[in-house]
Amino acid sequence: MVKRKSFSEMDCPVAQCLEVVGEWWSPLILRNVVVGGMTRFDQIQRDLSIAPNVLTDRLATLVEGGLLERNQYSTRPPRFEYVATEAGKDFKTVLDAMCSWGTKWGNVPK
Amino acid sequence: MVKRKSFSEMDCPVAQCLEVVGEWWSPLILRNVVVGGMTRFDQIQRDLSIAPNVLTDRLATLVEGGLLERNQYSTRPPRFEYVATEAGKDFKTVLDAMCSWGTKWGNVPK
Repeated sequence: MVKRKSFSEMDCPVAQCLEVVGEWWSPLILRNVVVGGMTRFDQIQRDLSIAPNVLTDRLATLVEGGLLERNQYSTRPPRFEYVATEAGKDFKTVLDAMCSWGTKWGNVPK
Repeated sequence: MVKRKSFSEMDCPVAQCLEVVGEWWSPLILRNVVVGGMTRFDQIQRDLSIAPNVLTDRLATLVEGGLLERNQYSTRPPRFEYVATEAGKDFKTVLDAMCSWGTKWGNVPK
């Protein structure tokens, strides 16, 4: 992955938000978990047709950033599910704002 | 620039929003124009310490996506300013939601 310039030193809450969710795909992954109720890697991967290595990277960032929790639900084979934390659930306010904006200004068939 | 997978074919207003503003830096550039009142390339570039080629790329995407307008304000030397359209101004609702989320959950000193 390309190493991006971090926003973590910026003293701005928008930058702090983007530090965790500002990469390509991340808000759509959160949409699938927080709004779509998806929890499993394969489910999210199939729904988005996202490259598995990119999804692995984005999920790790979202876990590290405190928006998702990674829980093991099977030991043999080892399998994990991703569940939204309180911070993750609260991100729905941002997704809702994006949804309203996209409905008004995007190219979605109306 | 890395060519990203487009979200334009996705029938979802969140994806339509992200197609234009979902890249690293783009929401911060919009913050500077829409909230910060900055209009000039050098001003935005200096404020964000963003690489000029990246800023050029992001501004072009935001103009193409209809969030910013590019107006020439000097002919010799040729200089342009970037002004938010109605769609760009309306993106403030998303920035506000990010700001609230970042204030609650980010690492900004409180």
